[in-house]
Formats: sequence, structure tokens, C-alpha cells
Amino acid sequence: MKYEGFTPAQMREEIRSGRFTDQTSGSCPGYAQANLVVLPKEYAYDFLLFAQRNPKACPLLEVTDTGSRFLKTIAPGADIAKDIPKYRLYENGVLTGEYTDVSALWRDDLVSFLIGCSFSFEADLLAADVPVRQIEEGKNMPMYDTNIPCEPAGVFHGNMVVSMRPIPYELVSKAVQITASMPRVHGAPVHIGDPEAIGIRDLSRPDYGEAVTIKEGEVPVFWPCGVTPQNALMRSKPSFAITHAPGHMLISDVKNVNLKY
Amino acid sequence: MKYEGFTPAQMREEIRSGRFTDQTSGSCPGYAQANLVVLPKEYAYDFLLFAQRNPKACPLLEVTDTGSRFLKTIAPGADIAKDIPKYRLYENGVLTGEYTDVSALWRDDLVSFLIGCSFSFEADLLAADVPVRQIEEGKNMPMYDTNIPCEPAGVFHGNMVVSMRPIPYELVSKAVQITASMPRVHGAPVHIGDPEAIGIRDLSRPDYGEAVTIKEGEVPVFWPCGVTPQNALMRSKPSFAITHAPGHMLISDVKNVNLKY
Repeated sequence: MKYEGFTPAQMREEIRSGRFTDQTSGSCPGYAQANLVVLPKEYAYDFLLFAQRNPKACPLLEVTDTGSRFLKTIAPGADIAKDIPKYRLYENGVLTGEYTDVSALWRDDLVSFLIGCSFSFEADLLAADVPVRQIEEGKNMPMYDTNIPCEPAGVFHGNMVVSMRPIPYELVSKAVQITASMPRVHGAPVHIGDPEAIGIRDLSRPDYGEAVTIKEGEVPVFWPCGVTPQNALMRSKPSFAITHAPGHMLISDVKNVNLKY
Repeated sequence: MKYEGFTPAQMREEIRSGRFTDQTSGSCPGYAQANLVVLPKEYAYDFLLFAQRNPKACPLLEVTDTGSRFLKTIAPGADIAKDIPKYRLYENGVLTGEYTDVSALWRDDLVSFLIGCSFSFEADLLAADVPVRQIEEGKNMPMYDTNIPCEPAGVFHGNMVVSMRPIPYELVSKAVQITASMPRVHGAPVHIGDPEAIGIRDLSRPDYGEAVTIKEGEVPVFWPCGVTPQNALMRSKPSFAITHAPGHMLISDVKNVNLKY
């Protein structure tokens, strides 16, 4: 493992210099990773309000000052325009490019939103011997559109997107308790059991990610997912938005355990 | 008790009609009460960001749509301009009047922020036999300025204000656990013990509220206080702001126990 033992700051230096442009899954175990949404100030109030009204799907870890490229709280000094391995640019809701550095696209009216990610509670689930199937199977997590409406805010609206993990019956209560202790990374499940109750017809056909095996004696458990705010964002087709590319996250200096307090 | 057994909706009707203009302490036990801050839209983004960055001192329970006088979430249908027993109007940071109805002052550019209040966790402390001294002594809670800086946001900045409750040594851990379970109403203490460590010189002279007795064998325990955002607000002298008058809160439909989830 070339990067084993690297601190988050050391990994961000590798990323900033362009030496590391891969997915960040498994990088710096024990430290929280964050989703990125960058928007012009004209959309920032509505997006901040959407997050306030839908904190389970959109738990904000940090919001920058307008125009600032630098984080202060979860990764002090991190350069938002360079410290993520891969970015996506959306113009009027259309993906127009992928970049490993967006400093040339930066503008003085941009606000960056760093959003918590369920990677953090998965580490706790595994530590407590609760299986996480998509990790076992080396797949991207299955995610589904639901009929659970988000509270709209200004131009942003949509239904909640959920991630699903099949959990053995006898471990469901444990999985609820473990994830409930981390509300800043989506927290407790929103639903346990029958997929149709939340508008999901077929677990074998996820709307995002990949299907995973559900074994005999396992129940599907659904958590609010960070794709929710990205979906709400894309529906409103802002003139300009930058996000991380899927799986290419910001590696923060915040230990997962500190997300509980 | 004239209002014993009244639901929150019934109490709000008494308040809306002008029949009840008193403090709300003790009204509708079991239901959360909320602080109010109303600001013109031009200040709303900075205030929302201040709350996001300082969630322990400024836990938002609801933020209205711009111009709307009506709540949707914590007390559906409640009229913000009439359903609080007493309001204060501030112009350019100066208190210019108290009102029992602010509908004549309402404007289309106003945003209302409803902020959680420690009344909610005090009910849990008492239920678990942890004494709450200012209630025993029939006083207003003692509150203190500290040297703990808030994260500034736009025009809003300042230090954290804390409330203090003297807790018997053997119950301090219990008090931490009980209040930690309710982060939406300030959550766990920010400090336990020596007041000077957070810049408080004399517990007998609180900056707000009234001093309470600290008995032999008790330790002062400090919680983030909702006066923090009001202080940050007053420092920035917005052209126009409405707040609740101290002790005259919004009575919500949210049961305290539901603030844990």
C-alpha cells in the first residue's frame, strides 16, 4: 500500500500536486471524507436552507466564506480547488467536464458546501461486526429514489435518495444504534424492511450504484443518502456548479469518532 | 391552573387572541418552546451560516420561507406575528418597542428563525432527579459571557454565552448524558468546573439572568445558550429585527422527547 500511514494532510498534498487522482475509498482510514458542492452565491442561501430543512440527507460539515478556496474547520488550509482528486463541472444542469484541478474555473462568488458521507459510519459498523455488503462484494453502494419528499427550499426540491445495506435480522437494532450516534453523517436509518413502503419497486435495480446480494435472514435497511442534495441541485439546473466526481472525496482532518460529539 | 391541559394549538389560540400575554415557562409541559429571531432577507444568509457554524449555541428548529408569517414544521399553521405572547422590535440595534402582535410591522422580506431552548432538556433533568437550581429558587437562569469565540459568519460574530446549572458531583456524568441526547436544544455542556477556564470571573455576578446558590459538593456546569445568536445579532446592528421578549416563547407542537431523534 503506497499511501499506507499517510495523514490526511499528506494525502491532500499528493492530490494537490496531481500525483494522486484516484478514488479515495480506503484512504486515511479513521478520518471522515466529505462530498463537495460548489455554487455561486446567488444559489447559496437556498442550498443552505435546503440543508437546514433536510439535515439527515444533507448534513453539512462546513460551509466556506463566499469566494474563499480554503477550508477552516474540517481540514484547515485545504485548497478546495485542488485538494480533491477529481471534480465535475455542471453548467445549466449539464455535465460539461471532469477536472483534477478547478483553480482555473474559480470565481469570487463561489460558496463551497462540504457534506458528510456514510463512509464514516461504515467503519463503525465493520468494527462492531455488522457486515457491509457492498464492501464485501467490492461494489459501489446501491442507492434508490424514494417517495419520501424533502422539505423544499427556494429553487431546491425533490425526494430523498437512500442507500441500502442488507443487515442480518439479529444485527438490525445494533446497526440502528451505531449509525444513530453519528447524525453528522446521515445518522439512523429512515426505513427498515419492505422497500415498497418508501416507493422502491425492485431492489435488484438500484437507481444509482450497483445491486448487492441480500441473503436469507437479512433485512434491507435504508439510510438517507448524500445523492439527495446533488439530485435536488441538478433538478434546478444552476448556471454553474462544481461537485466532486463520484468516489473522489475530500479527505478531512476530522476523525470519524469525533463526528459523534 | 387556568390553562392546565391546554394543547400547544389551544395555547397559541389564547395568545393569538390576546387573552394570554405572560411568560410561557411551565406552559404545555412536555412540548418544546422556541426562541424567535426575525430578520430582513439581506441578513438571513449570514445568520443561517452563523447558525450552521455554531450549532451548539444556535440550534435551528425551523427557518421560514422569505415573507411567510406561518410555520410549517414545528407548529404547522402557527402565525409568527401573533402566536408569541410578547415581541421586541430592534431598529439599528436599539430596542424601540415591545408588542403583543407584530402583524402591523410585517414585511414581505422577513425571514423567521426558530431556535431551540434548554427548557426542553431541563424537563429531562428533573425527571431523572437532577436538580435545576434556578427552577427550585424561582429565578431566571444565570448566563455568562465567555472567552469561547464563535465561528464568525458574514456580519455576525461574538463569543459564546453560556447558561450555568450547579450539579451535585455524583450527578454530573448523568447530566452530561441526558443533555447530550438532545443536540437540537444545545446538547451537552461545553465546560464543567472552573469558571475562569472559560473567562468567567465571578459566578455571583452573571451577565444576564440571576445568580443562583451553589451548594457544597456541587460543580458549576456550563451549557451553550441561545443568548449567543441574539448577542451576535445585536452587535451587528441590523436595520430591523424582531425577537421574542425574554421568557415569552413560541410553544411548538414538538414533544421534547422527539427532539432526541
